[in-house]
Amino acid sequence: MRGLVYDKALAFRDDLPEPTPGEGECVIAVRLAGICATDHQITKGYAGFRGVLGHEWVGTVVSGSNRWLGKRVVCEINCVCRTCDLCRTGLSTHCRNRTVMGIVGRDGCFADLVAAPEMNLHEVPETLSDEEAVFAEPLAAAYQVMQQVRVDERTKVSVVGSGRLGLLVAQVLAKCGCALEVIGRNANTLAFCEKRGIQPRSVKDLSLRKDRDVVVECTGSPEGLELAMGLVRPRGTIVLKSTYAEGGVGTLSPVVVDEVTVVGSRCGPFSEALASLARRDVEVRSMVSRVFGLEKGLEAFEASADRGTIKVLLNIGR
Amino acid sequence: MRGLVYDKALAFRDDLPEPTPGEGECVIAVRLAGICATDHQITKGYAGFRGVLGHEWVGTVVSGSNRWLGKRVVCEINCVCRTCDLCRTGLSTHCRNRTVMGIVGRDGCFADLVAAPEMNLHEVPETLSDEEAVFAEPLAAAYQVMQQVRVDERTKVSVVGSGRLGLLVAQVLAKCGCALEVIGRNANTLAFCEKRGIQPRSVKDLSLRKDRDVVVECTGSPEGLELAMGLVRPRGTIVLKSTYAEGGVGTLSPVVVDEVTVVGSRCGPFSEALASLARRDVEVRSMVSRVFGLEKGLEAFEASADRGTIKVLLNIGR
Repeated sequence: MRGLVYDKALAFRDDLPEPTPGEGECVIAVRLAGICATDHQITKGYAGFRGVLGHEWVGTVVSGSNRWLGKRVVCEINCVCRTCDLCRTGLSTHCRNRTVMGIVGRDGCFADLVAAPEMNLHEVPETLSDEEAVFAEPLAAAYQVMQQVRVDERTKVSVVGSGRLGLLVAQVLAKCGCALEVIGRNANTLAFCEKRGIQPRSVKDLSLRKDRDVVVECTGSPEGLELAMGLVRPRGTIVLKSTYAEGGVGTLSPVVVDEVTVVGSRCGPFSEALASLARRDVEVRSMVSRVFGLEKGLEAFEASADRGTIKVLLNIGR
Repeated sequence: MRGLVYDKALAFRDDLPEPTPGEGECVIAVRLAGICATDHQITKGYAGFRGVLGHEWVGTVVSGSNRWLGKRVVCEINCVCRTCDLCRTGLSTHCRNRTVMGIVGRDGCFADLVAAPEMNLHEVPETLSDEEAVFAEPLAAAYQVMQQVRVDERTKVSVVGSGRLGLLVAQVLAKCGCALEVIGRNANTLAFCEKRGIQPRSVKDLSLRKDRDVVVECTGSPEGLELAMGLVRPRGTIVLKSTYAEGGVGTLSPVVVDEVTVVGSRCGPFSEALASLARRDVEVRSMVSRVFGLEKGLEAFEASADRGTIKVLLNIGR
């Protein structure tokens, strides 16, 4: 089968063996997949991954139990053991023995076929197009923020970073009616915010005052945290979304002196994301900048790294 | 008057002008003062401070209102405006216009006399010796941890760093009956823990498993956070106490991937610290390693930097 494989370099291959499903797993034909910042970070060495990349996707189940055969599905990315101390205490997304699709020890979705545990699947409502459903994974990650911080109409919130994830987080936050702004560098993505009624703010015009209750850091770079520390009020909260291969943070003394709370945030609830997409709470279709065939995967990666490009999709099995 | 002044280098001087109290301030003759890690960091450039160092002390009020004249007092270090948005919303220790004794824009206590706002003073109970009362400020900082994280008998807690602050934090935590260990490098300070019934653990014997609910980082160096990230369980909490002049942290990706909460922690409640000292909840007298006269201040600083030395005091006006 075909696939985009990372092994010291990213390559398109058409000679990959088809995946062999493990116990409780099925095989899914990938229809549409999304390229995410983490995919780029992996190609810079993040997580030390080798294999088929990709973890945002929608597909059709082609082998496995009758319960799922033929269904159109999206898929949670953490494949867990259900027996370790963390699984047994309700922290299964942090399973000590987990594999993570396209990130840790398990092939991902930038291929014709992918194997996944049935327990990870969610059926896609008929009313949702593939172009919408493919956003389930990053939108779930955006909803995770709402599980970690309390935000209401009086909360002043800044989203730092107007990229793919930042725009999803901002739209989710906007539904709470909080005093929201999105800080970014790119006129195109900031214009997207303005169109959605969300206050855009160019990083160039920024004067820091440390008066935001909550800052969600979605820049994908260490500089994002430094900016966040300059924005958040004493005793406020920074939600940290970025993981990256290179570069460290400077001093964290402002976190100590201002008694800031920094909350790391990763994967989130798929069911909420699908319900939100079905309600059209969040506008995702106009976030799709370009769609490439799988064989043009390297080109797609390049396009996806451009500032101003929002989401790049790979059309795989349609 | 005499004093230890930092201005690019630390120097003992005997020609300093006596302090002029501002409105609502009084002048206090310093009796005994403690040297703290922050003082050392300031002499490495932290906070960009110039002036008389020192912020841990006990003294006798020699001029000011009748309410305080002749009283033996300890003193909160943040001198605040009471009018800014943070003061008016209950965050006065984070006052935007604050000066901080011996740290930000205001002379400290390593001198014969110091000026301080009366509202910052706390009378020392007669039952407490100067050698105990001088621990009020760092012990208050230790109690601040209890205001920020919930700890009970089922909570697994590690204190990283067995220095001055680490030993105070550990003793405060031990009173909650949590599953506590102190991780350090120094046999002397670890032996202090053992004597107090607190599990010591040498950093050399450490095998990391990410299973601690709460890790309190008191090392005073960036490496402490890296160790803490290796100890804390997913969705656990790191309390960050260290501020330092030099060095940055590496990647914070573990905070994101493990969805850890990092809470910065600074000054704490003096009243709780004094009550705790009066109850003898915390053993401080045997933490005093050496006492120097003020004129031997440079020597005292050197002694205080030695590993294995716990607390070094300056005997000033007794």
